[in-house]
Amino acid sequence: MANNIMLYWGSGSPACWRVQVVLEEKRLQGYQNKLLSFDKEEPKSPEVLAINPRGQVPAFKHGDIILNESIGICLYLEDLFKSEGVQLMPDDPREKALILQRSLESNNIFQKIGDITCYNKMVPENERSEAGLQRLKDALSLELKLWEGYAAKMGTESYVAGKNFTMADAVIFPLVALVFRFGASQAKYPYLAAYYNLVKNRPSIQATWPPHWKTNPNTGDLLKNV
Amino acid sequence: MANNIMLYWGSGSPACWRVQVVLEEKRLQGYQNKLLSFDKEEPKSPEVLAINPRGQVPAFKHGDIILNESIGICLYLEDLFKSEGVQLMPDDPREKALILQRSLESNNIFQKIGDITCYNKMVPENERSEAGLQRLKDALSLELKLWEGYAAKMGTESYVAGKNFTMADAVIFPLVALVFRFGASQAKYPYLAAYYNLVKNRPSIQATWPPHWKTNPNTGDLLKNV
Repeated sequence: MANNIMLYWGSGSPACWRVQVVLEEKRLQGYQNKLLSFDKEEPKSPEVLAINPRGQVPAFKHGDIILNESIGICLYLEDLFKSEGVQLMPDDPREKALILQRSLESNNIFQKIGDITCYNKMVPENERSEAGLQRLKDALSLELKLWEGYAAKMGTESYVAGKNFTMADAVIFPLVALVFRFGASQAKYPYLAAYYNLVKNRPSIQATWPPHWKTNPNTGDLLKNV
Repeated sequence: MANNIMLYWGSGSPACWRVQVVLEEKRLQGYQNKLLSFDKEEPKSPEVLAINPRGQVPAFKHGDIILNESIGICLYLEDLFKSEGVQLMPDDPREKALILQRSLESNNIFQKIGDITCYNKMVPENERSEAGLQRLKDALSLELKLWEGYAAKMGTESYVAGKNFTMADAVIFPLVALVFRFGASQAKYPYLAAYYNLVKNRPSIQATWPPHWKTNPNTGDLLKNV
């Protein structure tokens, strides 16, 4: 069933990881895939550019249907394979609303992480400043406090949108994992940390854990003071 | 049916406009709404903050279900009122995939417009530079060229995802309209201009045209050279 699915992905990309989690949860494990190297700029290869003109991953094909926006891929898969594996989007409008809200709202975390990790690449050296970088870190910190508040309101032992693992968790967990890997303090964000520890051992998460995170569990402290 | 819907909105906000278009297309015109002033910072009022902690619009309630992410609101409305008015998300997986792809991908345009319009507000005066602002304009220009290519590929007299008006148009048209209002050249982006002129007189678009655009059809030339 899944052998006409092709996923180009990169290790550690939250956008790729969420798609892989959904594929696991929907029991579509037999899909074709190709792990690309960011260091070698493989997402800019003609093979990927042919299906994603931005030269980014995930780049996804199902037969000859193309999708490259990670949340779009997740919604597409859930919709098409609704009755397979775990139902990630409940029928109840209230639950669905919260899942859509949190999933799309997570772009704010993603954007703010990217602003920091890409600062040196995007801003010419003569325009960079400690103050400029700190401003970006402050913006991420403010964002994470909002999510810490959401997690606190849900309580411990809760997933993003309630008592069950949903699409919102597939979308958001990889971002939370990235934030902690990059050095954010679990003590500063205790409810997010509780969420991280609740979800991290889920089989779909473990099966798709970024390979280079396994071989190199330590990373820099880019987000240490966030 | 729509009187338990409440929308807080601002004139000229593409995120609000797309929701209004969907409400029109779904024939939910009787909804409650409140026009807020950005100049007076009304989205930061306690009334809005109570439902959107970011203090942004759209802020949306359906009964006591809350949603604030514009694309999330659009998807929620289409799903809940599928059989009302125009079907904005077709059942065909291929069409649905393209609609999801383009709708979510449009965040790139939105982000890049915001980077420019918010430059003076977000970057302290001593860190601003012509080069910095120009880099943001170049990024938007590159983005618009991609969309010009998409529009060219679809051909004239086509909507974003095919021969029918869909969710993708509700989401993307307000961004295209904003780009041209802010001075981007229709001659430089002829296929996007053709799309703009195809869609602008649609009843749902006209009914929701930003009020202050009607009274003030001219604007600055912020995006003149984009």
